[in-house]
Amino acid sequence: MSDPIQLGLVGLGTIARNQHLPALEEVPELRLAAIASRNATLDDLPSYHDIDAMLAGEAGLGAISLCTPPQGRFAQAVAAIRAGRHVMLEKPPGTGVSEVQALARLAEEKGVTLFATWHSREAAAVELARALLSDVAIRRVEITWKEDVRHWHPGQEWIWEPGGLGVFDPGINALSVLTRILRDPVRLERAELEIPSNKQAPIAAQLAMETASGAPIAAEFDWRQTGPQTWDIRVETEGPEVLLREGGARLYVDGQERIAAEDREYRRLYARFAELIGAGRSDVDLAPLQLVADAFLLGAQRAVEPFHE
Amino acid sequence: MSDPIQLGLVGLGTIARNQHLPALEEVPELRLAAIASRNATLDDLPSYHDIDAMLAGEAGLGAISLCTPPQGRFAQAVAAIRAGRHVMLEKPPGTGVSEVQALARLAEEKGVTLFATWHSREAAAVELARALLSDVAIRRVEITWKEDVRHWHPGQEWIWEPGGLGVFDPGINALSVLTRILRDPVRLERAELEIPSNKQAPIAAQLAMETASGAPIAAEFDWRQTGPQTWDIRVETEGPEVLLREGGARLYVDGQERIAAEDREYRRLYARFAELIGAGRSDVDLAPLQLVADAFLLGAQRAVEPFHE
Repeated sequence: MSDPIQLGLVGLGTIARNQHLPALEEVPELRLAAIASRNATLDDLPSYHDIDAMLAGEAGLGAISLCTPPQGRFAQAVAAIRAGRHVMLEKPPGTGVSEVQALARLAEEKGVTLFATWHSREAAAVELARALLSDVAIRRVEITWKEDVRHWHPGQEWIWEPGGLGVFDPGINALSVLTRILRDPVRLERAELEIPSNKQAPIAAQLAMETASGAPIAAEFDWRQTGPQTWDIRVETEGPEVLLREGGARLYVDGQERIAAEDREYRRLYARFAELIGAGRSDVDLAPLQLVADAFLLGAQRAVEPFHE
Repeated sequence: MSDPIQLGLVGLGTIARNQHLPALEEVPELRLAAIASRNATLDDLPSYHDIDAMLAGEAGLGAISLCTPPQGRFAQAVAAIRAGRHVMLEKPPGTGVSEVQALARLAEEKGVTLFATWHSREAAAVELARALLSDVAIRRVEITWKEDVRHWHPGQEWIWEPGGLGVFDPGINALSVLTRILRDPVRLERAELEIPSNKQAPIAAQLAMETASGAPIAAEFDWRQTGPQTWDIRVETEGPEVLLREGGARLYVDGQERIAAEDREYRRLYARFAELIGAGRSDVDLAPLQLVADAFLLGAQRAVEPFHE
């Protein structure tokens, strides 16, 4: 095996500490070599204030992983790509579709890999669900994605700001799984967005979608769920019913549990990043973000009670 | 020359009467053979209540032109395409990007032509502007699109409803010209949307965009303009300044008028539709709608005073 690719990580928030750092320790093709963060450092690792300082100081870096909030990520990705580095993007890959399309073109021009990740697609049961659904007609799909924003996003103001997506920040995970397990493309038909009167982004949303072959898909996203949390996708087919629970970690076929595996999402993302770099390819699937953009574009907005953390 | 293609027109509102009907009289490759409208008929022409009745009653129709509001157009387009007819769509081509992508796939599957029109791209000076800008570096672009909604959209409630786009209904014309005259792709950076407190859609918007090579584009859309109306795109370059006025009908190069031609937009659209049908091709460029979707997705919203017509 060749030397591992040296990787620089930008952003050292919750997702970086809980997911990216432990995952990187288990992917031998990549070696974490430096970090950039405005207000945090890691022991024993070169730390920089921002990506430009990191790119200037670490000539050996082959790849950059961005886990900063989406609002500032475009400029960071451009800097990394222009410097000839391969780039991996946390989800959502940007604040808008046109901006990620621009990154994809730039990466192609510069001959580097761009990987727009969707971590939920790497959940244990997703590929088996896709296989089970590959040759059976879909009747309808029902998505229920309800969680407690206070628990999952404490103090994260960016999720409420323009470009932060609100409840679509978790909801886009469901859409990323949906657009992976169904082979048929999906279009958005209608949406209703519930926006707290003191915020810019929705705290809840209901979507009506449809597959190309006409199967309806109903999605309910809600960030006000206390107690048990729900991340379910139920697919009724001409054959067995396929139910993904816990965001894709568990799979039930006609009520029988088929998979309950441990979480390896980020390990799989980084292994895939290394594989894409090796193959000289990019992976930028914008279907989930496109559905969210369409929901904002054509959705009806309804003001709901103010949200205070 | 072979027999003209028989065309059915769906929707008989202002745009159909002012533009589509006179244009069709001057395009010999097409012959208006029937219309479908919920509440209007035309003398001497078979009239139907809706597209399904028209498709059932007129076996000879080869093509359908849809100039109904965007909210109901998807189902009409699907009916026409499934019936093997070529389809032309008024702008905007749909209420969301994913829905028009679905139409494009369906048209391809069925082997028919789909033409998503942008009438402003057919304005007299647009192609000359594109040619003038083809080999010169762009410094910056400034779009000013200000008109009086009461004058141009009297009684049209659908423009304020979800999917109706608000001030982006005219603004998307500017974006369609912009994305035609610049060869470089455009991404949206920031947007601010001003939404009347009694409406769902913006009455004004400011956009910050950028070309792939880094030239800034500022756009200002406003529907509250009384008195003189403005539809200008000013392009500063390393060479001459190119200014399109009156929505692309007039062209000034370094202040000198170069073109002031009569309006032939819809005649050119129909001629192009016939040409696409003849060549067995489709033309579905979603860049203008994508920029609008991104503006709704990442734009900051600001409530402004209520609008009453």
